[in-house]
Amino acid sequence: MEFSALLTSAGINIGVCVLFLSLYSVLRKQPHNFGVYFGRRLAEEKFQRQDDYFSFERLLPTAGWIVKAYWCTEEEIRQVAGLDSVVFLRLFIFSIRIFSITCLVCLFGVLPVNYHGKEMTHNHIPAESLNVFTIANIIEESQKLWVHCIALYIITISACILLYSEYKYISRKRLAHITGSSPNPGHFTVLVRSIPKSDNELLDDTIRNFFVNYHGSSYLSHQMILRKGHFQRFVDRAERAYRKFVRVRLSVSERNGRSNMSRCGVCGVRASSFQLYRNKFIEAKKADLTNPEVVDAQKNCPGALVFFKTRYAAVVASRVLQSSNPMLWVTNLAPEPRDVYWSNLWIPYKQIWLRKLATLAASVVFMFVFIIPVAFVQSMMQLEQLKKMFPNLRGLLNKSFFARVVTGYLPSVVLLLSLYTVPPLMMLFSSIEGSISRSGRKRSACLKILFFTIWNVFFVNVLSGSVLNQLNVFTRPKDMPTMLAELVPKQATFFITYVLTSGWASLCSEILQVYNLVYNFFSKCICCCKQNTEYVYSFPYHTEVPKVLLFNLLGFTFAIMAPLILPFLLVYFCLGYLVYRNQILNVYYPKYEMGGKLWPIMHNTIVFSLVLMQVIALGVFTIKNSPVATGFTILLLVGTVLFNEYCRHRFSRIFEAYSAQVSAHITGFASEQCLFLKDMCAQDVIELDRDDEQSGRMQEIHQHLQDAYSQTPPSEGSSRSGGQVPIEQLIMEDPAQDASESSQELCDTVQEVSEAIHEHHIIEEGKAHSV
Amino acid sequence: MEFSALLTSAGINIGVCVLFLSLYSVLRKQPHNFGVYFGRRLAEEKFQRQDDYFSFERLLPTAGWIVKAYWCTEEEIRQVAGLDSVVFLRLFIFSIRIFSITCLVCLFGVLPVNYHGKEMTHNHIPAESLNVFTIANIIEESQKLWVHCIALYIITISACILLYSEYKYISRKRLAHITGSSPNPGHFTVLVRSIPKSDNELLDDTIRNFFVNYHGSSYLSHQMILRKGHFQRFVDRAERAYRKFVRVRLSVSERNGRSNMSRCGVCGVRASSFQLYRNKFIEAKKADLTNPEVVDAQKNCPGALVFFKTRYAAVVASRVLQSSNPMLWVTNLAPEPRDVYWSNLWIPYKQIWLRKLATLAASVVFMFVFIIPVAFVQSMMQLEQLKKMFPNLRGLLNKSFFARVVTGYLPSVVLLLSLYTVPPLMMLFSSIEGSISRSGRKRSACLKILFFTIWNVFFVNVLSGSVLNQLNVFTRPKDMPTMLAELVPKQATFFITYVLTSGWASLCSEILQVYNLVYNFFSKCICCCKQNTEYVYSFPYHTEVPKVLLFNLLGFTFAIMAPLILPFLLVYFCLGYLVYRNQILNVYYPKYEMGGKLWPIMHNTIVFSLVLMQVIALGVFTIKNSPVATGFTILLLVGTVLFNEYCRHRFSRIFEAYSAQVSAHITGFASEQCLFLKDMCAQDVIELDRDDEQSGRMQEIHQHLQDAYSQTPPSEGSSRSGGQVPIEQLIMEDPAQDASESSQELCDTVQEVSEAIHEHHIIEEGKAHSV
Repeated sequence: MEFSALLTSAGINIGVCVLFLSLYSVLRKQPHNFGVYFGRRLAEEKFQRQDDYFSFERLLPTAGWIVKAYWCTEEEIRQVAGLDSVVFLRLFIFSIRIFSITCLVCLFGVLPVNYHGKEMTHNHIPAESLNVFTIANIIEESQKLWVHCIALYIITISACILLYSEYKYISRKRLAHITGSSPNPGHFTVLVRSIPKSDNELLDDTIRNFFVNYHGSSYLSHQMILRKGHFQRFVDRAERAYRKFVRVRLSVSERNGRSNMSRCGVCGVRASSFQLYRNKFIEAKKADLTNPEVVDAQKNCPGALVFFKTRYAAVVASRVLQSSNPMLWVTNLAPEPRDVYWSNLWIPYKQIWLRKLATLAASVVFMFVFIIPVAFVQSMMQLEQLKKMFPNLRGLLNKSFFARVVTGYLPSVVLLLSLYTVPPLMMLFSSIEGSISRSGRKRSACLKILFFTIWNVFFVNVLSGSVLNQLNVFTRPKDMPTMLAELVPKQATFFITYVLTSGWASLCSEILQVYNLVYNFFSKCICCCKQNTEYVYSFPYHTEVPKVLLFNLLGFTFAIMAPLILPFLLVYFCLGYLVYRNQILNVYYPKYEMGGKLWPIMHNTIVFSLVLMQVIALGVFTIKNSPVATGFTILLLVGTVLFNEYCRHRFSRIFEAYSAQVSAHITGFASEQCLFLKDMCAQDVIELDRDDEQSGRMQEIHQHLQDAYSQTPPSEGSSRSGGQVPIEQLIMEDPAQDASESSQELCDTVQEVSEAIHEHHIIEEGKAHSV
Repeated sequence: MEFSALLTSAGINIGVCVLFLSLYSVLRKQPHNFGVYFGRRLAEEKFQRQDDYFSFERLLPTAGWIVKAYWCTEEEIRQVAGLDSVVFLRLFIFSIRIFSITCLVCLFGVLPVNYHGKEMTHNHIPAESLNVFTIANIIEESQKLWVHCIALYIITISACILLYSEYKYISRKRLAHITGSSPNPGHFTVLVRSIPKSDNELLDDTIRNFFVNYHGSSYLSHQMILRKGHFQRFVDRAERAYRKFVRVRLSVSERNGRSNMSRCGVCGVRASSFQLYRNKFIEAKKADLTNPEVVDAQKNCPGALVFFKTRYAAVVASRVLQSSNPMLWVTNLAPEPRDVYWSNLWIPYKQIWLRKLATLAASVVFMFVFIIPVAFVQSMMQLEQLKKMFPNLRGLLNKSFFARVVTGYLPSVVLLLSLYTVPPLMMLFSSIEGSISRSGRKRSACLKILFFTIWNVFFVNVLSGSVLNQLNVFTRPKDMPTMLAELVPKQATFFITYVLTSGWASLCSEILQVYNLVYNFFSKCICCCKQNTEYVYSFPYHTEVPKVLLFNLLGFTFAIMAPLILPFLLVYFCLGYLVYRNQILNVYYPKYEMGGKLWPIMHNTIVFSLVLMQVIALGVFTIKNSPVATGFTILLLVGTVLFNEYCRHRFSRIFEAYSAQVSAHITGFASEQCLFLKDMCAQDVIELDRDDEQSGRMQEIHQHLQDAYSQTPPSEGSSRSGGQVPIEQLIMEDPAQDASESSQELCDTVQEVSEAIHEHHIIEEGKAHSV
């Protein structure tokens, strides 16, 4: 491909983008599209519907939306769309910053060096092949490679600094968000699963007895998770029917202004009455202890939600092992009510580890099986092979138009269609996995799609040609750097066009909401549906985050290989920032919060991209016989890994659920502190405390605490020097008494103070209780 | 090697063992060896010293010690030597059981099949080559391979059943041990590190304020960890000098019977007085707030021990994140006082992750660097190469005696000597790592030595010949099974002799305590030292556990390859069981407890051995062209991995510190539960609670909890069916009120009950407090 061809392609794509954005700015002004483009605002009813009069202005493309999207502050976005949107936009800000730096360094530093890498007569620049701008143009053992090495250092170090500050900023935001949000029932609630069944008492009583016994001072009440019985299903259906009825009535009476009516005209009940009936039904069931059906239903109960008086009590109950069998009385803090994934709560806890392993295996298998359509698509691009495969289509294929369609468009259509199956399938896997919350399911799907995208778009395309043959590279990890270093620069052209087409086009399709627009058009103008349907979805983080991270990966890996990709990427990030800001503000409605837990995924992926960039550079320097540059790159590699380790220790516990899953896996190195009793369960601990208190030993133990710790363990020091242990023990009989005498005074005063504080607490608690 | 030669070698080794054991039974009766063979008993002074009269019986070898060791119950062992010894002996019991089964299956099932594997004329059995008994004797595509497959299944399934029952038994023992042990100060104490420094107040006050503020009702007192100042060092030295003096006096007055004297004749102080002075010194320092030196000392303080009123409070404080910065206020449950590794407490917490990475890297490097002496030893075995390396020694080497010494003995001496450097070095690495307890350090060293042993004894020897060339197998993981399958049977002879010499001999040297015996002999009989030195060491788990696990690995991997190794292993385990029981009862004195935390290491290593056995079998079946057997083996492999996963979920939290470190790494798959707020710190949580309590919102929130969770989230169900969200919200305004009205009664009664319980608690606590 020549440079001029690239410029032409870029020009065409820019034109298409401008066209689509103008189209958007016109379409969004049409009142019948408000449902498509202002879903969130309509959902919140803040959006003032304009009357449907026609004005000429409605047909003029304007840039007002860009200004609005740009000037909106981060705090506003957080309030209307939650912390996750902020985190997602921070990813764009990070990308814009780092790729501005990278662009500067690589376009003005690396690109001229690549261009003049070989002694050759250069053509006029537009007629130059794109390969002249890649690192492949540099001869072996060239002294110019130190430019690449320095560029690598600048990129890595600035990326690390930016990543660190982003991580710090987001973790502060996350803490402020949790602290500043309104009281969340999830903070007071613990989900208990795998409750042991006893024949003598009902599960309900078992739960109450357990928590009154061990968390008596903080236990408030509990609610069992029951499978739906016949009656409940009947009530559900009645409620749904009623809701439909109300909706029809309201849409009829819409023109007359909305009434505050909420009483059903037919049967005289309110929607909320269904809840009332349901509750009464449950209560009636509870009272009836002799009914074998009730006993059965309770036996099938997979868990319960336990409410505590304070957040602290709930956190403590969720963190401490409840029973000596870790598979019983499993406590987790409950997700927010709207975030609970009810159908997964009925999965027995004992299955979950198996389900996780199975879905992991299934995703991995799917990732590799997906190579088959890719290979099939590749084979379709060769007309001769196709003729061989389908001999009876030969007549059709000989016509040039059909041939062009089949070889030119069909492959990408097939690939695109098969790619569309990925997010729903991964979402299904994540549901099967047994996540108890919707947000957890989405995060898990996001992770799966991320792995899938990086593998199937980056690696499979880099190793393209004969995909299945090249797979052997993964069985020879030692050869990987050089292999990648050979293959990656060759694919630069493909990925530049990928950014232009797939990247920019995806933004246009995102902002136009093509599918919803078409659906809306058909339902309104063709089918003449008068009903104002709205498209309120929550933001599809699980598809968008992997996409953006893939472009980050491309940017880093090609930065010093083929710097021409960088300007196009920078345009993508800038445009994406505006587009997604607009979409978050207008279209998507946050149904649940992940609390910014996506950031560690983003952070780790970016660090992975950096490491990949360095590994490929390592391969290049090896191929080009530059041992000094290789040495410096290894140093940088070690530094990057250390940086990631530090970030994990510094921040990951704030985003905990993630750290347990991936970082430990990636580094294979988790904290190993030798702790005693950390693994002891609450049950045993409290029993012990009570025993001691009843027998009056507690005071004694407290007194011994002070002197039990002395920094010079006498028996150790002298037995090492060959001392006699029996004599040691003779001497050892006294210090305890002596020391306790000497430190008695200090101990007493501290105890007095703590007693006073304790009494004060009890009084305060009592007050709060009587309020 | 022929079968008769193996029998001869075994006979010689049995003779040597019997000789050594007889020697031991004689030596242990000599009074001047009591210090060597009854260290633990002397340390506990239960051992009645016999008078030094001579009797003929003393020179007769007897088997009484075997009977004593065998009939001792497990509970007795636990009481005198701690849970770790029990766990160690359980490993032997497991090994004896599984290898009895394996022996039966392989000797009567697999061995005849191997022997008749080829159509050949057999010699008289003693003259047969050992290769005839290995799997190498079976022809390709033989139908007889299903015997091996069935044997594989029997071994794996019985190993899994035994492993599961052992894990269950040991975790029950561990819980009983923790519950049943005497009140341990470690259970009430939390080690706080990385305390933030403020300029305005002393660290002492910072700690007190923090814990009074956030754990007021349970905080008792605290003790700072201070670096030793000049005065303290002086007191330490004085104390050491005093102790020596007392020892000398006692040894002089020993003959006159022991006096209960503990007051020093010279200066009139008691040993414990030093502690008194030290405490007074610290107190004096505390009071002097204007002294800049004091302020400085407090600023250098790396942490503190905080004491709580109850065990539960300590567990809670150690488990809950204390501050929003996870690198500040790091809390761990403190180890037992005698287990604390004081010098490591002074390591700043921020360094620890770096130290861990560094030691990990150092151990890996050492593991690979160690191949160099092995390669050197191998080169020494070739006389010609040696002559080339040292041309001026040629004259010496031509003499046959020298040649035999150099090629026969020197290599193994060099290897043995270099192997002796491993445990101290690994122990040093583990110290540098920053473990806060001695037991943690030992466990970490055990793990390092285990990896080292398996790598350097098993893999390097299997891949022997040209070690460094064969290392390439690890860069091609796909070829590993077939490579191992080819190499492992070839090394059967070497490993059989390894079991005979290294295994049996190590037991003999263990029971004879050669080093201590010789030292004792020299110091008593040659130097005529009258002092009765004793050798009281704690049990060297870090060297013995890897040794036993290596023999397990050898047993499993060679079980179906070369079953002849099994009887020798079985003898090793039976003898080892008796020897170590005797040693634990008589020689070693437990200085600290690991609480059975070594079991997960053992369990995982045994599962690794099983997997390795299956992988090698897979390679063999592939080589022998038996696809059905290959398929069944893959099934078994998956089953074994699933079994390990289940065990990890079922038991590992009971042995927690380990699970965090290795299992997550091995499987790369930790539990990912989407939890909200789990990562919120105690500080924030309590602040929020107090805010709510003061503003009176708490009651309100509690009332909302009941109805916040309804199993049919209405907004989700209907918005999916394309519903209108604004109307949804209209309807949604009421249910909360209605539901709260209907469930008010239930809520009230539950609250009354819980209030009553809470009051009862407060009264009880008050009582306990005033006692």
